[in-house]
Amino acid sequence: MRPGIDVECREVGLRDGLQIQKVFFPTQDKIRWLTLEAAAGMPEIEVCSFVPPKLLPQFADNKEVVAAALKIDGLCVAALSPNMRGAQDAFQAGIHKLNYVTSVSESHNMSNVRRTVDESVADFERIVALRDSTPGAKDIRLCTGLATALGCTIEGNVAVSAVLKLAERFVEAGADELSVADTVGYANPQQVKAMFEAVIDEFGKTVPISAHFHDTRGLGLANTFAALEAGCRRFDASLAGLGGCPFAPNATGNIVMEDLVFLLEGAGLKTGVDIDKLVEIREIVARNLPDETLYGMYARAGAPKGFVPASAAA
Amino acid sequence: MRPGIDVECREVGLRDGLQIQKVFFPTQDKIRWLTLEAAAGMPEIEVCSFVPPKLLPQFADNKEVVAAALKIDGLCVAALSPNMRGAQDAFQAGIHKLNYVTSVSESHNMSNVRRTVDESVADFERIVALRDSTPGAKDIRLCTGLATALGCTIEGNVAVSAVLKLAERFVEAGADELSVADTVGYANPQQVKAMFEAVIDEFGKTVPISAHFHDTRGLGLANTFAALEAGCRRFDASLAGLGGCPFAPNATGNIVMEDLVFLLEGAGLKTGVDIDKLVEIREIVARNLPDETLYGMYARAGAPKGFVPASAAA
Repeated sequence: MRPGIDVECREVGLRDGLQIQKVFFPTQDKIRWLTLEAAAGMPEIEVCSFVPPKLLPQFADNKEVVAAALKIDGLCVAALSPNMRGAQDAFQAGIHKLNYVTSVSESHNMSNVRRTVDESVADFERIVALRDSTPGAKDIRLCTGLATALGCTIEGNVAVSAVLKLAERFVEAGADELSVADTVGYANPQQVKAMFEAVIDEFGKTVPISAHFHDTRGLGLANTFAALEAGCRRFDASLAGLGGCPFAPNATGNIVMEDLVFLLEGAGLKTGVDIDKLVEIREIVARNLPDETLYGMYARAGAPKGFVPASAAA
Repeated sequence: MRPGIDVECREVGLRDGLQIQKVFFPTQDKIRWLTLEAAAGMPEIEVCSFVPPKLLPQFADNKEVVAAALKIDGLCVAALSPNMRGAQDAFQAGIHKLNYVTSVSESHNMSNVRRTVDESVADFERIVALRDSTPGAKDIRLCTGLATALGCTIEGNVAVSAVLKLAERFVEAGADELSVADTVGYANPQQVKAMFEAVIDEFGKTVPISAHFHDTRGLGLANTFAALEAGCRRFDASLAGLGGCPFAPNATGNIVMEDLVFLLEGAGLKTGVDIDKLVEIREIVARNLPDETLYGMYARAGAPKGFVPASAAA
């Protein structure tokens, strides 16, 4: 955690938001977006995926985007890769953090990354070994995302015990962070609270625990508050709520970053992020994705009268 | 609370949702809406306001709507009135519950009901006396809404102590229920939790406490979960999130009933309400208010795979 910050927000719109967009988002506007968002105080941005450009042409410019992001002082530059090959490229590009993703439910993992969970764990072990043996790479943090941890479009309910079991395998394999993800937007705040209490109780002293919520069924920020109550202090979100999962029907919509920051700052928790500067950046998204719905209630209504964000308080 | 129900939901769309609509919503479709919603299991519906038709022509048919609602077995028929005159009419119409509203902040009360808070309290005392002296009216419950309890568009922050003080005056005057309202959509879940803990601690053993949230800045359901955590078990919401306040710029949007019921049922709390039946009723709203945005994420995404609402569980 950065000094002076109570909760760490991580922008995932450039990855989770853009991966389902068929229109190529121009490289210069990706760079403008992340540069302005870093300037608004965002501590960490997941700037792209490292996957074959044939599969996701949206990320064909990933090296260029990472190179630009690395020039920004103090920004943690993260990228996603679901496999060894992508991790190699990402390490070479010089990222600070690799987000690796495995679904807790076997069938979703097969759909999403075309491998069994065992194969995903084994691949992660190889990635840890690669990181440790690559010159200059030893400081790269490896974050393992536990996808479908709060429900699966194929298997339905996912047990807390299954999440804890996969989390344990990743921690033992060398994960530096665990991200508990409601990949398909199924979660309920009561469930979230219980899940995060269990995960934090078990692993919170070993690694940081972060939360990744979608607002598919309107409960994204209620789930955020529930995770906050359970002690979680790291949250993914995307500008204007861009996002989705190719295997979750209608699952568009990460939680909206502007509304998340409003929630946190209003609760007296410093994020270091300037909400009104975030709102200004929406224009870049609106211009490049004219057919996309931009979510976010704060952007529409503005600050309450007399609102003082925690980060601006004396 | 009805037997077998853990949380009581109250539909306010027919009043809070329609009061700002310039288009007259046909009487027969108001009746169709409330009839279908009662059939979906909604225990209480605020069906109209009793205010001069010159001021709000939308409610010119209030007696007819109340008469139709009263024919529905088991439904609690509520109506709003901000003054003695409206209360008289409402009592004559035969309602079960009168919702009376006063803003905690002096200036908002003046804008909203053109009276000081003292005058509002004095008027409420007269309404209590009227109820007690009107033949056949003694079972009518009087619910006092504490508007702007979580922030005011004119005065900004509102202190917990100010809310407790006004609540005390109403309880002493004979209120049968207190509704704590985020009239203008300013509230934060942290603040909501503290507010409801304080109000429930002070008055929860004397009268039921209910919550009225708007989703103006996206935190409506996070605030709901916070109030739930504090022990609140009664919530207002409106179908498709219709609603607003004429003195709160952009404050359209009560919390969405369908998403509220999804939250509660998913948290294992029985509401007695069938969400999918609620979703079907949206058509009546869509047809009559074609220019209005219909909110609600559940309506768009549907139930998670394998979802069993608490009310449907064995």
